[in-house]
Amino acid sequence: MDQIDTPAIMIDLGKVEANLARAQTHADSIGVALRPHIKTHKLPRFALRQIELGAVGITCQKLGEAEVMADAGIADIFVPYNILGAAKLDRLAALNRRVVLSVTADSAVTVAGYAARFSAAAPLNVLVECDTGALRCGVQSPEAALALAYRIAAEPGLRFGGLMTYPPRGRPADAERWLAAAVAQLRHAGLPPPRVSSGNSPDFYQSVAGDTATELRPGTYIYSDRMQVAFGQGGYQDCALTVLATVVSRPTETRVVLDAGSKALAADTCPLPGHGHVVGYPEAVITTLNEEHAIADFAACARRPAIGDRVRIIPNHVCVVSNLFDQVHLVENGVVTGLLAVAARGKLG
Amino acid sequence: MDQIDTPAIMIDLGKVEANLARAQTHADSIGVALRPHIKTHKLPRFALRQIELGAVGITCQKLGEAEVMADAGIADIFVPYNILGAAKLDRLAALNRRVVLSVTADSAVTVAGYAARFSAAAPLNVLVECDTGALRCGVQSPEAALALAYRIAAEPGLRFGGLMTYPPRGRPADAERWLAAAVAQLRHAGLPPPRVSSGNSPDFYQSVAGDTATELRPGTYIYSDRMQVAFGQGGYQDCALTVLATVVSRPTETRVVLDAGSKALAADTCPLPGHGHVVGYPEAVITTLNEEHAIADFAACARRPAIGDRVRIIPNHVCVVSNLFDQVHLVENGVVTGLLAVAARGKLG
Repeated sequence: MDQIDTPAIMIDLGKVEANLARAQTHADSIGVALRPHIKTHKLPRFALRQIELGAVGITCQKLGEAEVMADAGIADIFVPYNILGAAKLDRLAALNRRVVLSVTADSAVTVAGYAARFSAAAPLNVLVECDTGALRCGVQSPEAALALAYRIAAEPGLRFGGLMTYPPRGRPADAERWLAAAVAQLRHAGLPPPRVSSGNSPDFYQSVAGDTATELRPGTYIYSDRMQVAFGQGGYQDCALTVLATVVSRPTETRVVLDAGSKALAADTCPLPGHGHVVGYPEAVITTLNEEHAIADFAACARRPAIGDRVRIIPNHVCVVSNLFDQVHLVENGVVTGLLAVAARGKLG
Repeated sequence: MDQIDTPAIMIDLGKVEANLARAQTHADSIGVALRPHIKTHKLPRFALRQIELGAVGITCQKLGEAEVMADAGIADIFVPYNILGAAKLDRLAALNRRVVLSVTADSAVTVAGYAARFSAAAPLNVLVECDTGALRCGVQSPEAALALAYRIAAEPGLRFGGLMTYPPRGRPADAERWLAAAVAQLRHAGLPPPRVSSGNSPDFYQSVAGDTATELRPGTYIYSDRMQVAFGQGGYQDCALTVLATVVSRPTETRVVLDAGSKALAADTCPLPGHGHVVGYPEAVITTLNEEHAIADFAACARRPAIGDRVRIIPNHVCVVSNLFDQVHLVENGVVTGLLAVAARGKLG
């Protein structure tokens, strides 16, 4: 690791493997399908490993990611997004001929776009996106979900694929109540949902057997990050991705400046103060990110690194950090064993 | 522009040209050299244009950027960074043979690293970085600047290049006082600084003839952004870079969801509320960024866009947005006329 130039992303394969296996075991134990979100890693290697361990397929947040994953041999891909416009619909149709594909809609406009582009010869699976309290996209009531499901089911080029939600973090019971009501209405109407897709990383281990969701889509769990730790999901020892940085300046006794700024760690905040956890220096606070510098306050630390020393930082939000680097280093038992291109990053649309 | 898939970066060349020309005119009028920071655009085309308009050279924040710019034919490059470690020092030495290069140091450790790698045959220009109140890197007093200047001047492989600071935003007088004191000490000691490099975009137009700085390094001025507008530097009409996005969901009467999230707009905050300015909808507030969605509150807007409509967003902090995209579209008089690779993004170190 001493040979790697900084800043750089280091991924501990042992921790990745433990995080993946633990999640699959939990999903199996409660009888729910795991469909990991690859937005976090954007690496075909890890997507394939997730499938190998038992995932039913993967989730991608954009078409460009899904295309890369299809190229890598992933056979079942869910893009939980309202996909609009001729260019993207053409790409979607091409992808639909290659893999088992599903998407979402939360409006008649989105459904009409899909319906105009797809035909019964190669129909598109469309799930209804539901706003169960996260205040993002989604229909606003179970009644609206039913109405949109009818609309999808009535189109010869579309198949009603079920329900999808990004549940409100920390309030999985809200999503459960909403989804259970919607499923009851759909069944009553003769439109039982083939899938009910939910889940995120923070509440993943609170999911239990008997929940309405039939599949869960955690993403961050593969690496974990400071936000997950703040949410009580494991500890720093579970965090597989770190940003390797060098101390480039020690302007004062307590100020430490690292060569990883907002273009390496991203400015996303989390419930804990500062912009990341400096491994080995739990009392250090990264107070400011400039573009290529992190300014950290080490006043509370008993020892402090010297100029030229290297440290590793667990970022607040790991998904956006993956998106900043073109390459990641793989580490096994403390030794760098590989370099991977972040194949699915930087995609337009 | 209707043909461009979203999200995408659009750069208005007319506004770029106006912003560049205005800054060069100001620099000329106060008799100071302009050395634009290319971290904002990372595009050789614009760096070359900045030189063409009268800039004495450019500033890069990392070696990887400087290498790309040297490849593009830029002859004078300043990297105001403490560059450490064998790998980077080797690259620095290679670069020093190709262009007029200068770097900074704020510690004896950094100077020792440079001194060990460079020799009198091809010496390295080293400026002393000064913390004039921004609390980033830099020596803490004019006395410390003098001491480090002596150390640089004593090394056969190094040339003392002068002083450099990133001045505290909104308090240029603090930097001026500090630099003036340091220059006086250096002159008294027989070490007059060949250059005094300062400046940022927010305070650029407050700089006046007779300031101690001999060169200024604004970066953001080329595109401007919402942060600059918040700081009183021009208006939204001066912002040359916008993120083109599509309305993908209208879950409620007032909620508008766009396909540009934290992986397109970045989570950087600014003194104004929300995560960007939606052109044509000044009352809209982008309340939340998810990774691939912006959630906006249009409650205060008299009219609201429909699903499928396209809008343009002026980001809070444009420099980190450039860093997220592999390509940018060039626009002239509202027509897309080109696509450029962001050549200097994603560089390791």
